[in-house]
Amino acid sequence: KQYRVALIPGDGIGPEVVAEGVKVLKEIEKVDSTVSFSFTEFPWGCEYYLENGKMMDDNALEQLKDYDAIYLGAVGYPGVPDHISLRDLLIKIRKGFDQYVNLRPVTLLHPELTPLKSKAEKDIDMLVIRENSEGEYAGAGEWLFKDKPEEVVLQTGVFSRKGTERIIRHAYEEARKTNRTLTSISKGNALNYSMVFWDQIFEEVGKEYPDVQTYSYLVDAASLYFVSQPERFEVVVTSNLFGDIVTDIGAAITGGLGLATGANINPEKKYPSMFEPVHGSAPDIAGKGVANPIAAIWSVSQMLDFFEMEEWGEAVLTTIKKIIKEGTYLTPDLGGNASTEELGNRFVELLLLE
Amino acid sequence: KQYRVALIPGDGIGPEVVAEGVKVLKEIEKVDSTVSFSFTEFPWGCEYYLENGKMMDDNALEQLKDYDAIYLGAVGYPGVPDHISLRDLLIKIRKGFDQYVNLRPVTLLHPELTPLKSKAEKDIDMLVIRENSEGEYAGAGEWLFKDKPEEVVLQTGVFSRKGTERIIRHAYEEARKTNRTLTSISKGNALNYSMVFWDQIFEEVGKEYPDVQTYSYLVDAASLYFVSQPERFEVVVTSNLFGDIVTDIGAAITGGLGLATGANINPEKKYPSMFEPVHGSAPDIAGKGVANPIAAIWSVSQMLDFFEMEEWGEAVLTTIKKIIKEGTYLTPDLGGNASTEELGNRFVELLLLE
Ligand SMILES: CC(C)[C@H](C(=O)O)[C@@H](O)C(=O)O
Ligand SMILES: CC(C)[C@H](C(=O)O)[C@@H](O)C(=O)O
Repeated sequence: KQYRVALIPGDGIGPEVVAEGVKVLKEIEKVDSTVSFSFTEFPWGCEYYLENGKMMDDNALEQLKDYDAIYLGAVGYPGVPDHISLRDLLIKIRKGFDQYVNLRPVTLLHPELTPLKSKAEKDIDMLVIRENSEGEYAGAGEWLFKDKPEEVVLQTGVFSRKGTERIIRHAYEEARKTNRTLTSISKGNALNYSMVFWDQIFEEVGKEYPDVQTYSYLVDAASLYFVSQPERFEVVVTSNLFGDIVTDIGAAITGGLGLATGANINPEKKYPSMFEPVHGSAPDIAGKGVANPIAAIWSVSQMLDFFEMEEWGEAVLTTIKKIIKEGTYLTPDLGGNASTEELGNRFVELLLLE
Repeated sequence: KQYRVALIPGDGIGPEVVAEGVKVLKEIEKVDSTVSFSFTEFPWGCEYYLENGKMMDDNALEQLKDYDAIYLGAVGYPGVPDHISLRDLLIKIRKGFDQYVNLRPVTLLHPELTPLKSKAEKDIDMLVIRENSEGEYAGAGEWLFKDKPEEVVLQTGVFSRKGTERIIRHAYEEARKTNRTLTSISKGNALNYSMVFWDQIFEEVGKEYPDVQTYSYLVDAASLYFVSQPERFEVVVTSNLFGDIVTDIGAAITGGLGLATGANINPEKKYPSMFEPVHGSAPDIAGKGVANPIAAIWSVSQMLDFFEMEEWGEAVLTTIKKIIKEGTYLTPDLGGNASTEELGNRFVELLLLE
């Protein structure tokens, strides 16, 4: 099988970490004759913006639409406001390609990585499924009586039946397929429209999945449990904003954003899906060859799963755990002194031993 | 000075823990001739609801309005839906008495209480000031095309200039008075109306407080830092929903909801303020005499601060740390085998040694 991958290395450390991810895919191609990857690089991002006044070409989505996947490094640059770099690239692709499923694994790769006293790998291993297309992030609102004493600003979350059902259904399917429990995170006792609706749909759709064991937590309680009892969670489904928050708590308990990945999926494959490390562009260390490529390599694991090459996806994740355990080829942020490239090289060696 | 305190012991363990808090106030009255407290008990809560079909008397706010403070135990009971027990008592008092400031200390009382590997008391000691009257909790919304495929549910956060300014100003005052940094938590990169407005007001009001050092974090980053670097925070100001979430993370890193307190303040003292442990009514252990009264006693410390008896407020907090350190008069949830009452008795002994 042949997969076309669009690369948007982006800003800062983006290109450095994406290079290592691509290295992994090329190595797999070498040893697995059933698969081949082609790569096309797009020069978009904040540097492009500073030269051309836009983050991407005007017809960027048109250019990207026939790829099987987009592999994104990082976006953001001092001097370019966040709302431009994010809205005009990251968010534009998420929305334009209806990538309504955001998959964020929260998995402890090594016991030393967690700041929690008595948690081991078996305690922190969940998949958070975040709604990625609407909800609190719909961008709807009203700004009234500007600068007057009676000024009032409204922000409206938009929860459609279609949008709410499809994400919840996706989560039930995942829980059933992998034989895990499903936990919904909401806030029906205070958000008296949207979250009451969310809870209703969670129950409604659940009737079709009597085999899936479910739980439902308030977002405040869930946030507490992420820290005190992460072992409660297996598959988690939640709204756009709540998913944003709890996955950052998830990053905190597994060693930080440097080790967090996210897949933005259009399950129908009508449009390409996008794979990205969650970390930023880290301009302070860009170009020094010390960036940690593990999150970007984890994104490759998610891409392989999405291509239904789950064995390779699994092998990449196992190798990540191995290289961390081995401890001799880690970047400075993990207490080692390897370069980005040295880590990547050692990674492919270990992967082939798998 | 003479203070009138309205007691709403409420449900489950509420009456047991409130009794110990009252004991502390009575002890203070005994040894400090400048002050006296009078107590009036109101039988409201879920049991009252089951008998009378309402959580409180119809004219409850009228009955409460001349007290200096309300001391609430806990509300909630199996069989009474949350939205009734909360909306018709807790939320009704918060809103009816314009208690727009919610003060939640996040303070580590003893190093063994935190689940975090390398944090000590000096690292976790902040005051979260949560907006308590509007914002995401305004209860505004719309439920359209019910049960149709095009069904869509809207939930609108309402941020008024008045409401936003007054909470932010209150926080700046607190930071100035106590010579601490002030951190605002918001989400301007995704909530493009409400949180852009919040950030604007935070900056605007800040111009009057050039002496206060400020920080501004996105709620996702802040949630991560609460776990990885809580030492970043001193005074924190945030919206109703975000405050709800981060204070539960705060509870998680300091030993759980059993040790969390919250004050609902009307700073103008036009209406009474309300002091409550954050924990629930814990029906499973109610009536057994094993409930931990420390959060309820901490509420008393907040009440004393509010009455401008800061020395006593401080003494109560110091004594809480002492009784935990001593370790011999703790309830089962903290690994001891004292009863609620034994803990309370030992507490007043220690307090008088202060
Ligand atoms: C950059 C920001 C808009 C984004 C979000 O909130 O979705 C980020 O925090 C994330 O989690 O991918
Ligand atoms: C009970 C609930 C409505 C309440 C809230 O969300 O405000 C509680 O979680 C709290 O933090 O006091």
